Amino acid sequence: MVTTPARLELVALPDFPLVAQGDDLAHLILEGVARAGLELRDGDVVVLAQKIVSKAEGRLVDLAGVEPSPEARALAAQVLKDPRLVELVLRESRRVVRARPHVLIVEHRLGLIMANAGIDQSNVDAGGREVALLLPQDPDASAHGLHARLRETCGAAVGVVINDSFGRPWRRGTTGIAIGAAGLPALVDRRGEPDLFGRPLQVTMIGFADEIAASASLLMGPADEGRPVVVVRGLQWNAPMGPAADLIRPEAEDLFR
Amino acid sequence: MVTTPARLELVALPDFPLVAQGDDLAHLILEGVARAGLELRDGDVVVLAQKIVSKAEGRLVDLAGVEPSPEARALAAQVLKDPRLVELVLRESRRVVRARPHVLIVEHRLGLIMANAGIDQSNVDAGGREVALLLPQDPDASAHGLHARLRETCGAAVGVVINDSFGRPWRRGTTGIAIGAAGLPALVDRRGEPDLFGRPLQVTMIGFADEIAASASLLMGPADEGRPVVVVRGLQWNAPMGPAADLIRPEAEDLFR
Repeated sequence: MVTTPARLELVALPDFPLVAQGDDLAHLILEGVARAGLELRDGDVVVLAQKIVSKAEGRLVDLAGVEPSPEARALAAQVLKDPRLVELVLRESRRVVRARPHVLIVEHRLGLIMANAGIDQSNVDAGGREVALLLPQDPDASAHGLHARLRETCGAAVGVVINDSFGRPWRRGTTGIAIGAAGLPALVDRRGEPDLFGRPLQVTMIGFADEIAASASLLMGPADEGRPVVVVRGLQWNAPMGPAADLIRPEAEDLFR
Repeated sequence: MVTTPARLELVALPDFPLVAQGDDLAHLILEGVARAGLELRDGDVVVLAQKIVSKAEGRLVDLAGVEPSPEARALAAQVLKDPRLVELVLRESRRVVRARPHVLIVEHRLGLIMANAGIDQSNVDAGGREVALLLPQDPDASAHGLHARLRETCGAAVGVVINDSFGRPWRRGTTGIAIGAAGLPALVDRRGEPDLFGRPLQVTMIGFADEIAASASLLMGPADEGRPVVVVRGLQWNAPMGPAADLIRPEAEDLFR
């Protein structure tokens, strides 16, 4: 179960530098935490915007070097997008979910249903080059690596969440969701816990890391490189650790489709 | 635009009493705020669990008085649910979206796509009666009334969000979303704002009240009558006010369907 806290504090790390390939994010986080006048403690959760993780991992692609396949060219003509971008989208995807003019929704190879396979062309310092930023190769592994590196560097056992802004069926506006997580239960299973009156709970699975991701989005702002790291203090959990992959619903059990 | 804050604080009001029909929620909130050692300030956002709003508004229905229609009986046999509950679901809905054994997803008359029209049979103190709790008649109006009443009573202009736990397509686990909002922009439209490098933003609509609702859910816990009111301090916004109804995506513009 998750022991619900009475108070939570969220702090965006000030003056976070622009991130480039090879940067040591754990080091940058600890510097930012010090600038904020904090020290990381056991149980803190560090939420990182996907973009800085992707950049640190060298997921920036120069479009000039991308050769679109015939399939990508045909799809690009249908959705009215750059064929090189569409080529990257297809390489990152398992299947196309929706394709119409200006709309390309796919199932990302990670299982996420998303526009353009999460490939971002905004907020990227191109230095004149046309570039696209892919999602991290394995965001749960990225989160796990950061969790381990932070523990090694500062001694604290902190949760790590990598978030991204997602559009949603049926709802307008994006919200932050977790694409990577480590050191906490991304999905909390409450089946069997009683409610206030001793009856079994109706709602049994909680998207814990998604709620953390959304709360951190409130501080990251639109150009989320401006404040790409948020520390959440005060959360409590007492459930088995699990990655963000647990939040992806297998198609066979999707009641909404 | 929303000016993103550097810090946020969330406080669950302690020892909130069980709510009954006719209770003055604004009064109970101000008592709870005092117990927490706080005073409400301009810009604070008060998040209330849907259940207490519904109870205060007398939305508890005694199932013994519900006569299922033939349509409800037929559907109940299909989904293996209580025909009286299904009758209430149908009364609260525009259409059935999915019906299979143990699953009944509808479009609520408010436009929300949800299981069982949001009707809750857990956490309801029935005093021996079989009861069901419906959503508030008009959650945006409920939020607006609370916003006005809090302003009148304590002088502060606070945002009000009524949240509920929702299942989602493609994602496992529920998250808090906003079914009612007042005194803040539920949906923030950032179209035209530049990113860090001066290019137009790709992500242009933010589900602001949904992110607030999710953050508050982290403190409400499973039996959300335990901590049904959370004060969020530190949010900033500079966009036109708008209700939670703005978060409902018209089917015609839903890119994911």
